[in-house]
Amino acid sequence: MHIVDLIAKKRDGYPLTKEEIEFIIQGYTKGKIPDYQISALLMAIYFENMNDEESTYLALAMRDSGDSIDLSEIPGIKVDKHSTGGVGDKVTLVLGPLLASLGVKFAKMSGRGLGHTGGTIDKLESIPGYQVVLEAEDFIEQVKKIGIAIVGQSGDVAPADKKLYALRDVTATVECIPLIASSIMSKKLASGADAIVLDVKVGHGAFMKTEADAVKLAKLMVEIGKLAGKKVTALLTGMDEPLGHKIGNALEVYEAIETLNGEGPKDLVDVTVEIGAHLLLDAQIETDFEVAKVKLQEALQNGTAYEKFLELVEAQGGDLDRLDDPSLLLSKNTVEVLSEKEGYVMDINALDIGKAAMRLGAGRETKEDTIDLDVGLDLHKKIGSYVKKGESIATLYVREKGIDEAKSLILNAISIGNQEKHIVLIKQTIK
Amino acid sequence: MHIVDLIAKKRDGYPLTKEEIEFIIQGYTKGKIPDYQISALLMAIYFENMNDEESTYLALAMRDSGDSIDLSEIPGIKVDKHSTGGVGDKVTLVLGPLLASLGVKFAKMSGRGLGHTGGTIDKLESIPGYQVVLEAEDFIEQVKKIGIAIVGQSGDVAPADKKLYALRDVTATVECIPLIASSIMSKKLASGADAIVLDVKVGHGAFMKTEADAVKLAKLMVEIGKLAGKKVTALLTGMDEPLGHKIGNALEVYEAIETLNGEGPKDLVDVTVEIGAHLLLDAQIETDFEVAKVKLQEALQNGTAYEKFLELVEAQGGDLDRLDDPSLLLSKNTVEVLSEKEGYVMDINALDIGKAAMRLGAGRETKEDTIDLDVGLDLHKKIGSYVKKGESIATLYVREKGIDEAKSLILNAISIGNQEKHIVLIKQTIK
Repeated sequence: MHIVDLIAKKRDGYPLTKEEIEFIIQGYTKGKIPDYQISALLMAIYFENMNDEESTYLALAMRDSGDSIDLSEIPGIKVDKHSTGGVGDKVTLVLGPLLASLGVKFAKMSGRGLGHTGGTIDKLESIPGYQVVLEAEDFIEQVKKIGIAIVGQSGDVAPADKKLYALRDVTATVECIPLIASSIMSKKLASGADAIVLDVKVGHGAFMKTEADAVKLAKLMVEIGKLAGKKVTALLTGMDEPLGHKIGNALEVYEAIETLNGEGPKDLVDVTVEIGAHLLLDAQIETDFEVAKVKLQEALQNGTAYEKFLELVEAQGGDLDRLDDPSLLLSKNTVEVLSEKEGYVMDINALDIGKAAMRLGAGRETKEDTIDLDVGLDLHKKIGSYVKKGESIATLYVREKGIDEAKSLILNAISIGNQEKHIVLIKQTIK
Repeated sequence: MHIVDLIAKKRDGYPLTKEEIEFIIQGYTKGKIPDYQISALLMAIYFENMNDEESTYLALAMRDSGDSIDLSEIPGIKVDKHSTGGVGDKVTLVLGPLLASLGVKFAKMSGRGLGHTGGTIDKLESIPGYQVVLEAEDFIEQVKKIGIAIVGQSGDVAPADKKLYALRDVTATVECIPLIASSIMSKKLASGADAIVLDVKVGHGAFMKTEADAVKLAKLMVEIGKLAGKKVTALLTGMDEPLGHKIGNALEVYEAIETLNGEGPKDLVDVTVEIGAHLLLDAQIETDFEVAKVKLQEALQNGTAYEKFLELVEAQGGDLDRLDDPSLLLSKNTVEVLSEKEGYVMDINALDIGKAAMRLGAGRETKEDTIDLDVGLDLHKKIGSYVKKGESIATLYVREKGIDEAKSLILNAISIGNQEKHIVLIKQTIK
């Protein structure tokens, strides 16, 4: 097999075989095939696409380039969820304890990642003492014992994907649905879960801007999952405004705690319950979708979900006393952002709200950046809210940096007009 | 300017500006832009094409990446020709002396190149003593004095093209008309000539397999030449069978000498005279195309062209005594290839005939290969010839290697049937 022939084959619109894709990924991971041939191939894929089988072979070959997590020691059906990323997305922090409180096994390895805020792992680190690194046996043991563990990624998961992604980033081949789907699924297929719900965000605050693209991505990921023998469901959920109100690491833990205590914002609760209901069915704990939703709502209201969260934090070494008043996790320095107009909030540019949090120090722009866990913002208004001139639309939790920039980003991100607008949050379910 | 933005721009189908193309070529030549970004760009160009202006900017930027030849010291109009490459193409060896004998200034730098046989320079080296390296002043001086010099490429001509070509070769981006046209023209524009005829070969023995592709390439090269201020004509000529009969370095010198003495094969004479007539007009020596053709035919018949050839060889140090019987330049070991069928030659796979010569040692497969100047083959039959079973269809001039392989390549390359077929040699003229 010669790589130049395979580039030509894809360039000419022919599908690559399983063996050819394995040859490419193994050769690239081992450094036998140079970047300049892979980048030409990626651009050919950008133009000529890959079918479902090719995308699956690619995801599997990337999964097999590194370590997979073996959860077989944990009895029962293990579940996982993945979000394609949105502003204010703290669903995992709520969903994990919620599901575990109903008997689902939630063994989650999570990333730090780049973005407006840190990843789930950064957020959990805002709880003093919380240990994100566990030995594999302790991780398994904890899930067996209390039904949940959330730790940082350990081992070398899908190194081929890391290498490919870095190359795509500098060769204008990121925006390619089969490559995006294979990249996400290579890591999900390594996670050891039996059932996975993919939360595909759509809207101007998401990576997928249009519903058509989001559907394509969702369908392909579900297909890859099926071909790889997993139970996969994708939900299309709106990212036309941030999810919930709070954006920032400790701020999102705070809002997760509110939600686990039955006082969460409606959109966050709705998305969490929708995903949770699918996974309760997948885990064969409930058989009726509507009943499952009721059970989940109850667990948020009656304190059992929050109890499980406290069990999780305690098991991983977090200081429970510090959670009695989670507002103490936030920066003491606050700044109000006052509205300059009166009317209904018509639109919120979620990306710019995310950028505002990043400017305050909540997120990383490059892998080397450190983040301030206690900064961020609390957005008091959502699309459809009425706002008066001079009223606070957001509270910033700040250190020194980025305050003016964050203010102006937020003011520009919010469009105020005279119509009370409603948006649809859960758009489609793809199985 | 960021290269990743330029890759995305081309990927999305937008034309690149002059400044952007210069930024890319300068950055790549200096090693500031890595191969893996350029190969992604090349594949994007493969799919999205380049318009005439972009192709011209690319050719000029590649020309300007290295040395250009200054022929301004030579009075009058300097001419050049270029062939896209075919089997048995020894036109330059005949055309140069022929034109010079009629007063045209022919200052030619030629390559060695890869292929079935060596380049023009390798062929001339089969004349004992012929010096292919001349100092720039001596080169100019010789053209001023006798009207012709044919030397090897000196200086660093279009290094960006060399680097790009090597990358295209390993990334399946060779077959892309704007890239082919820019590559050829970058070197032609550096050659210092005022008028250029491009001999674009078409047919299964040529790089361009279809007339439609050959026309595209020809038109684009003519357009680039015009935009760069040169007088450029392209001829489409057939490469459905080898040009002439002899393939191999000394063998082609031999056939050139026959042709310069009025005894050349019709196809070689026709192509040479057609190109020559355009250049006689371009050089303002003749004004009527048909008259020009007659003058050229006469110069081949009356010995003046051959006399000029001898002047050229003498000026560059070649041993004229050895040209009295040019068959002495060939290997003494010959093998006949006998026909296994009887009938008309319906088709000759020129590429396989070229390969046969290469297997005997006449050509290079890699830059490092050495070639045997005295080997090759003399094909006695052309399309339309009648051949009897057991009759010799080719004489091989051999050393030890490749004899059986060459025989079987030749036998398989020649289709024998019952129709007397005629082919059109000069297909189109594009100005």
